[in-house]
Amino acid sequence: MSGSDVTKHPFYEKTVSSQPIFNGRMISLQVDTVRLPNGETATREIVRHPGAVAVIAMRDGRLLVVEQFRKALERVQVEIPAGKLEPGEDPLEAARRELEEETGYRAKSIRHLRSFSTSPGFAEEVVHLYVTEELERGEVRLDEEEFLTCEAIGLDQAEAYIDEGKICDAKTLLAVSLWRNRLLTGEWRA
Amino acid sequence: MSGSDVTKHPFYEKTVSSQPIFNGRMISLQVDTVRLPNGETATREIVRHPGAVAVIAMRDGRLLVVEQFRKALERVQVEIPAGKLEPGEDPLEAARRELEEETGYRAKSIRHLRSFSTSPGFAEEVVHLYVTEELERGEVRLDEEEFLTCEAIGLDQAEAYIDEGKICDAKTLLAVSLWRNRLLTGEWRA
Repeated sequence: MSGSDVTKHPFYEKTVSSQPIFNGRMISLQVDTVRLPNGETATREIVRHPGAVAVIAMRDGRLLVVEQFRKALERVQVEIPAGKLEPGEDPLEAARRELEEETGYRAKSIRHLRSFSTSPGFAEEVVHLYVTEELERGEVRLDEEEFLTCEAIGLDQAEAYIDEGKICDAKTLLAVSLWRNRLLTGEWRA
Repeated sequence: MSGSDVTKHPFYEKTVSSQPIFNGRMISLQVDTVRLPNGETATREIVRHPGAVAVIAMRDGRLLVVEQFRKALERVQVEIPAGKLEPGEDPLEAARRELEEETGYRAKSIRHLRSFSTSPGFAEEVVHLYVTEELERGEVRLDEEEFLTCEAIGLDQAEAYIDEGKICDAKTLLAVSLWRNRLLTGEWRA
């Protein structure tokens, strides 16, 4: 996620002014007025977000996934365990925390795979993706407003969930694709 | 992207009230009060979005990508061609339109691969992902507020861009992973 000297890039958009619109529990919203490369001005609607973590957690060759209702989509989805960063929280610690809270498994070892933006056209959100293949029993501890169930699925089941539309978010599709690659090549590569 | 009878799911959150916060050019924002499965109420911050398209476009075995500045991330990123749906626009038509506008290539044939949500925790956005391996020359026509350059890259270059952090958004990481799979198995599978 490099970004040095971005202000010298020919497409850089300098902020002329920034109008705060909303400051919520999870996100905030602002509208920036920017100077375009051609000298004109334009507005950019920007959702601020603290960042999130997601974990590819393998148990006996199966992927841990959680099923939950997503209000923004009015749909129940099956996703890899994920959650937003607490203020000041290290992403690695957040990944360990979210994994145990949502699945009841603790990672004996875990490593960072990739970080990626989710909606670069309007959102600041970056997801830090981790992988672990060494788990031990921990304790499920859901947030009081969180309702979900966890299961461990094989690749065939993951592909069936994709075909049924139960798995239909970018990070989980990416996880399944990386997993298929891992089975073909022996490597976790993003 | 199924969703029938979701109101009967044990984790369903019924909307008690919905407060509009902002109505912009690209997104709008609302805060919903919902009834949780345990009977309590909670608020959900929801970004409304018309949906978007993205295209895996292969030319002579190379992937077409565009480089552009992303204000929400204050960073220049390399991504597959993408853009939001116009009101009432068919996603397939939007995919053809965005591909030609951003890259100057027209798809002689194109097919839908997957649709996925990008940020299910707070955003309604769904990206419809298409693939084409048959291109012909068209015409670049950028929006007046759009500045980008296009190139065709091999898999080695894509992997180098990932390592450098120039490719760092979910849809493009997914595209590269699907491409690697395609080379290994002969199939485009999500």
